Amino acid sequence: MSLGIIGGMGPMATAVFYEKIVAMTDAARDQDHIDTIIYSCPQIPDRTSFFLGKSSEDPYPKILELAKKLEEQGVCAISIPCITAAFFSKSLSSDVSIPVYNGIKETADKLAAKGIRSAGIMATEGSIKNRLIANALLEAGITPVEPEKEYQDIVTDIIYGDVKAGKKVDPARIYKVAEHLKANGAQSYILGCTELSVAAHVMDLDGPFYDILDTLAEVSVRACGKNIKAE
Amino acid sequence: MSLGIIGGMGPMATAVFYEKIVAMTDAARDQDHIDTIIYSCPQIPDRTSFFLGKSSEDPYPKILELAKKLEEQGVCAISIPCITAAFFSKSLSSDVSIPVYNGIKETADKLAAKGIRSAGIMATEGSIKNRLIANALLEAGITPVEPEKEYQDIVTDIIYGDVKAGKKVDPARIYKVAEHLKANGAQSYILGCTELSVAAHVMDLDGPFYDILDTLAEVSVRACGKNIKAE
Repeated sequence: MSLGIIGGMGPMATAVFYEKIVAMTDAARDQDHIDTIIYSCPQIPDRTSFFLGKSSEDPYPKILELAKKLEEQGVCAISIPCITAAFFSKSLSSDVSIPVYNGIKETADKLAAKGIRSAGIMATEGSIKNRLIANALLEAGITPVEPEKEYQDIVTDIIYGDVKAGKKVDPARIYKVAEHLKANGAQSYILGCTELSVAAHVMDLDGPFYDILDTLAEVSVRACGKNIKAE
Repeated sequence: MSLGIIGGMGPMATAVFYEKIVAMTDAARDQDHIDTIIYSCPQIPDRTSFFLGKSSEDPYPKILELAKKLEEQGVCAISIPCITAAFFSKSLSSDVSIPVYNGIKETADKLAAKGIRSAGIMATEGSIKNRLIANALLEAGITPVEPEKEYQDIVTDIIYGDVKAGKKVDPARIYKVAEHLKANGAQSYILGCTELSVAAHVMDLDGPFYDILDTLAEVSVRACGKNIKAE
């Protein structure tokens, strides 16, 4: 069973996502790992610009083209390591005949299973606007807490000004947003943008942070019939 | 211009390789990065077992199949992040019409440009046997130094027993081999197996180590018309 990945949104998130998949798979040799096809296409138009109406370039046609290519090559599932693009998962689910994963629902379910009642969302403005994370939390009985503008601007700058530009992220900025979310009632924080996952990958964040990319990797490994390696 | 990657040999090396490409590319936003297609196929038969005659399963047919798929999809170059499989680069160069890179020659040239006269080789037994690295060094005027059996066994165990099995590598074992190579005349050490690159990726090796995977990433970025980001 092969896994298809539509990546490049951004490219470092795709690299980190594939690394998580390999690290999580219970395997003792190369041949135990998942056969994977990755289309990392950073030229896909920016998702947030599109959702905010700042650009009329629709990312969906390119995403669909890559999904079709993956389907033709017989992958059993498609994962998209871009939370903002998760908005298109629903359309993809009707346009291709294989499962398309984004990890959002599973993350909400994981939090609910832990008894968490409220979660702060750190994500792009595009994701905040398309409300996928907020709605998934509500469906799981969890109250979503979104940052106020001043703090959303910090998140946006970490994503676009730091990670997508290849710069290092100062953990203090992530903690600053977390403190604000906590003050507004959040018991936990969702890293709801794969660029934040890239930042978290090279730091040791202290606190109840939940990374959607981790959940997506887990879901992807299991979708291909493999087990998760014991820690 | 798109890059094609034939990966999965091993899969973690492929993840680290793609990460190096993204980190090295001079880019300020997603859209500046290289469009990349990665076939990570860990089911490709083990290269070393084949070269040592321990297995009759030839890895080449699958590698060629993936190269043809990449060629059909219009990539401008193919990179193979597996030094042992570099042996097949020559056949591929005649079987497909696009350049195929492995980074070996360019690493030898880099060492020669630095005035290095001898280099110890850390690689699989398969790579030692196919002599690609040793011959490239000789052609660049550098004396290759290969480990004696006891030390080659350590290298083999790091590759298969640690990295491919998803275990942590003890840097002391790499230094032990380096000391041995130095005692036998090596002025520098080549990390000539992508699994050693994976190990080096999460440690800070001290000494004149040269990683072929770094060179391959550089070559790949330039082959796609992009510049290398200033450190």
